Amino acid sequence: MRIVIVGGVAGGMSAAARARRLAEDAEIVVLERADYVSFANCGLPYHVSDEITRRSALLLQTPESLRASLDLDVRTGHEVVAIDRDARTVTARRTTAAGVDEITLPYDALVLAPGAATVRPPIPGLDLPQVHTLRTVPDADGLRAVVGEGARRAVVLGAGFIGIETAEALRVRGLDVDLVDLAPHVLPPLDSELASLLDAELRDHGIRTHVGVAAEAVTALESHDSDENDGSYAGDSADGAVEVRLSDGTTLTADVVVLSVGVRPDSHLAAAAGLELGPQGAIVVDARQRTSDPHIWAVGDAVAVRHGVTGTVGPIPLAGPANRQGRRAADAILGALTPAQEARGVLGTAVVRVFGLTAAMTGASRRTLEQAHIEHHVVHVHPGDHAGYFPGAEQMHLTITFAPDGRLLGAQAVGRAGVDKRIDVLATALAAGMTVDDVAELELAYAPPYGSAKDAVNMAGFVAQNVLAGTLRLWYPEDLEKVMAEALVLDVRSAGEFASGHLPGALNVPHTQLRARLDEVRDAAAGRPVRVHCASGFRSYLAHRILDQAGVDSANLSGGMLTLRAALPDLELVTD
Amino acid sequence: MRIVIVGGVAGGMSAAARARRLAEDAEIVVLERADYVSFANCGLPYHVSDEITRRSALLLQTPESLRASLDLDVRTGHEVVAIDRDARTVTARRTTAAGVDEITLPYDALVLAPGAATVRPPIPGLDLPQVHTLRTVPDADGLRAVVGEGARRAVVLGAGFIGIETAEALRVRGLDVDLVDLAPHVLPPLDSELASLLDAELRDHGIRTHVGVAAEAVTALESHDSDENDGSYAGDSADGAVEVRLSDGTTLTADVVVLSVGVRPDSHLAAAAGLELGPQGAIVVDARQRTSDPHIWAVGDAVAVRHGVTGTVGPIPLAGPANRQGRRAADAILGALTPAQEARGVLGTAVVRVFGLTAAMTGASRRTLEQAHIEHHVVHVHPGDHAGYFPGAEQMHLTITFAPDGRLLGAQAVGRAGVDKRIDVLATALAAGMTVDDVAELELAYAPPYGSAKDAVNMAGFVAQNVLAGTLRLWYPEDLEKVMAEALVLDVRSAGEFASGHLPGALNVPHTQLRARLDEVRDAAAGRPVRVHCASGFRSYLAHRILDQAGVDSANLSGGMLTLRAALPDLELVTD
Repeated sequence: MRIVIVGGVAGGMSAAARARRLAEDAEIVVLERADYVSFANCGLPYHVSDEITRRSALLLQTPESLRASLDLDVRTGHEVVAIDRDARTVTARRTTAAGVDEITLPYDALVLAPGAATVRPPIPGLDLPQVHTLRTVPDADGLRAVVGEGARRAVVLGAGFIGIETAEALRVRGLDVDLVDLAPHVLPPLDSELASLLDAELRDHGIRTHVGVAAEAVTALESHDSDENDGSYAGDSADGAVEVRLSDGTTLTADVVVLSVGVRPDSHLAAAAGLELGPQGAIVVDARQRTSDPHIWAVGDAVAVRHGVTGTVGPIPLAGPANRQGRRAADAILGALTPAQEARGVLGTAVVRVFGLTAAMTGASRRTLEQAHIEHHVVHVHPGDHAGYFPGAEQMHLTITFAPDGRLLGAQAVGRAGVDKRIDVLATALAAGMTVDDVAELELAYAPPYGSAKDAVNMAGFVAQNVLAGTLRLWYPEDLEKVMAEALVLDVRSAGEFASGHLPGALNVPHTQLRARLDEVRDAAAGRPVRVHCASGFRSYLAHRILDQAGVDSANLSGGMLTLRAALPDLELVTD
Repeated sequence: MRIVIVGGVAGGMSAAARARRLAEDAEIVVLERADYVSFANCGLPYHVSDEITRRSALLLQTPESLRASLDLDVRTGHEVVAIDRDARTVTARRTTAAGVDEITLPYDALVLAPGAATVRPPIPGLDLPQVHTLRTVPDADGLRAVVGEGARRAVVLGAGFIGIETAEALRVRGLDVDLVDLAPHVLPPLDSELASLLDAELRDHGIRTHVGVAAEAVTALESHDSDENDGSYAGDSADGAVEVRLSDGTTLTADVVVLSVGVRPDSHLAAAAGLELGPQGAIVVDARQRTSDPHIWAVGDAVAVRHGVTGTVGPIPLAGPANRQGRRAADAILGALTPAQEARGVLGTAVVRVFGLTAAMTGASRRTLEQAHIEHHVVHVHPGDHAGYFPGAEQMHLTITFAPDGRLLGAQAVGRAGVDKRIDVLATALAAGMTVDDVAELELAYAPPYGSAKDAVNMAGFVAQNVLAGTLRLWYPEDLEKVMAEALVLDVRSAGEFASGHLPGALNVPHTQLRARLDEVRDAAAGRPVRVHCASGFRSYLAHRILDQAGVDSANLSGGMLTLRAALPDLELVTD
């Protein structure tokens, strides 16, 4: 049996390795158009930053090591240009010093793992040599070279995962960095009230963020601009600086531009072969990774997957699912796949380090649920990563979304410690179809350096239970204008906290005094509802319970001032 | 309604606080025999070590703060001495400067949260003033005092969680520390092949461990022994040193002895009231925390719980479950508990820091399953906490147990990073009743600083899938003697690794050469089965697949040399 695999990175190489382990006698050929296979594409920004110092660390395998270890026939520099489905052959073009030739290989099973390609919006100037991408090892080499040659100013177009990592890498290397995104905030998959924390962290480290604006053109500057640039940077081909014009009228000067506005399935080969494609051109596969051709399987960033929460079908380019899809395709081809091992929905679990912060997410965000018109609740909590009485505890922002029947729908978190752990736990809960009751009851490992007896995850579950039980009624930052207009804002923090900055018109009654001062609150409310808040939402929850049981129309600000200020970073507070 | 709660730490105070949030008009009285409520008992060893420097950090709440915030009537120094179930009253004894008096309080609902008491084995000398325990804030004060007064030598009896933490704390403070346990290894809940790693870490930090031995007597030394002790330590009451005699004949001299051999439910009050008790005297409760008396609930270390995997009923003293039980009892008393919120099995999820190592576990260990005669498989893997190409990756020891039908039964891990995260994920998987197929498919957050595209947890799932599919046959350290006698040991590491230390009689064929040297292996085996290994189990898995498909009777050492050496720390290897 001959298995031919097109693409030798995450999904393709997982398929190849798994196939060999199951079938010692199969002929397994991997055709990779680039010069490298099995490279650490998620590590590229860290090589640009020099955190990963050795380039060789990125090259996890070579054709030689794969031949020795797994008896794979890995051919780099081979671009597959055609699939003949009737003849069951692929044709690959190989460029060597001697010229270009083509080979045709028959297959019994074909695995397509072509990955994704950088989206190139129709912006004039993207073909200038100063404009880079960061998807391959040569891309990283190129960026390191311009940094090494003295580039001082960078513009990164796109503030998604890779854009942020690249901006940080260039900043760490000492460049002035502007980071631009068309979306209203950085890291668009994150809800806005968490994304603002990343924006602040980026700015604290000297990166200028420009959100809600498009890049309209990249233009080469006259060479004397390079002279104005202290003569310190000439570029690898003396290309000089460029100007990036944004839709808000800003112009940014840069020695290097990195285009990172997203990727799309690189499915032109599948399309040409007449395979069924889905949204965004993603290759349609069944739960066994099989395409519309029974002899062709597909895996990785080029395929369409079902979102595990919303049910939406489309590409979700992530390394973890790609690797498991590769394994699954090999199992399916070799008859080793059980029904329990068929594909499940993808949750989009992801994490990114942003200087000292970690941001992570799984499942459906609040915005995703709103756009999909899926009924849901949202709670915001601010627990510590470990027991507050143990040194070094860091408060995180943790948000969960859940259905009216209690089923968990998603989670997001930002903080300086313990964020990845909580999102991994919630991703597991989500995969299991857990409810917020289940989450509240999770029995997680507790010792003071690691967690709390009531873990951050349990706390989110408790709050969600209270919402569903009706013992906690929430209001949200987006309600602020209406609340200020129509309700009494009751700030139950201490007098000192209140004095340091509070909402205009708020009444301050520390929660410990509320029982004794209920009449005062009733008088101030004068028939209006009372909208309570504190710093993080816990003391105000106690106050809300007192008010609620006293018959006062009350609600508690979800996540307190921490969430409010993150949601509305420009909010002006009154100081006394 | 009056709710009386006996015991004001984790479970009791959770019940009190939750009850108030649900019932503003209830009278809630907390009777605590000690002088402190809501103290951080899990933090006590870290106060002894001075990692938690401020004593006040341990005191999370005071009766005054609880009155102000939650309108609780918290009475410290009140020991409940009797329950009159017919009259629905409790009698508490209060010792004040003026003497001892008794009060009797009626209740509508009574919550028992008496906790656990230190097990005091019948060892002569445990009543000497040099013998301490570490269960309360005054206990921590006492240990800090003897350290401050110059104690130089400590013996800790019991190498469970608190014993290990206490031994580390005293070592950090500069004492010579001997740590003694009757069990065959430190941290008895951990399987032996992981516990040896903790033993090595303790020894590397200068703690002498004595396992498989009992303390037989503690004897006060004559006062001149104190003089021999450089006069540097006299003790707070000039008690001098003691001698601890062990069952192996060793005698240890110590200025301070800490007794930490375990706890038992402190259920004497419940027993006297005629409530139903279960194994080890634990109070029997239903899934709503109700005892055999419909007006009495019980929570925390004193109650019997059902183990979530084995079904065994008994006490499992852990802070997390205690807190949730308290919350549940309040909900039940106040009619707010839904069926989905009733008690589930307890998994015994726990974690401990041992100097630079973390050890964590959830569910059933290998030994527990063996003792319960529950059919199971075990796999050992050694994945990194994050991508190997990113700086600082640490290899962990991760073990999972699972049933023949694939259901996860338990997990344990030891390592320098990422251990608590993986055990929390697996605890969540266990709570969900996941199979190893589910675990293999978990979609966890991946970026190079946080994990791998195939996370440690996924890897364990993959290996388990292979075992169930029959594509991976394992052998274990306990098979070593038989393997050495009856099989060819095939070491597929590199020649350099082999030379640095290998099993006697092993044949070295690096895995990359195996296909070409199959005949050589067959000749060496001479009809015997082939038992393969490498360093961690991965390369030997590839070799095993080659051998298996070539028709050779082969099996792969679970976890490789890393697990073998951890399981058999005294194993002598041959160097060439």
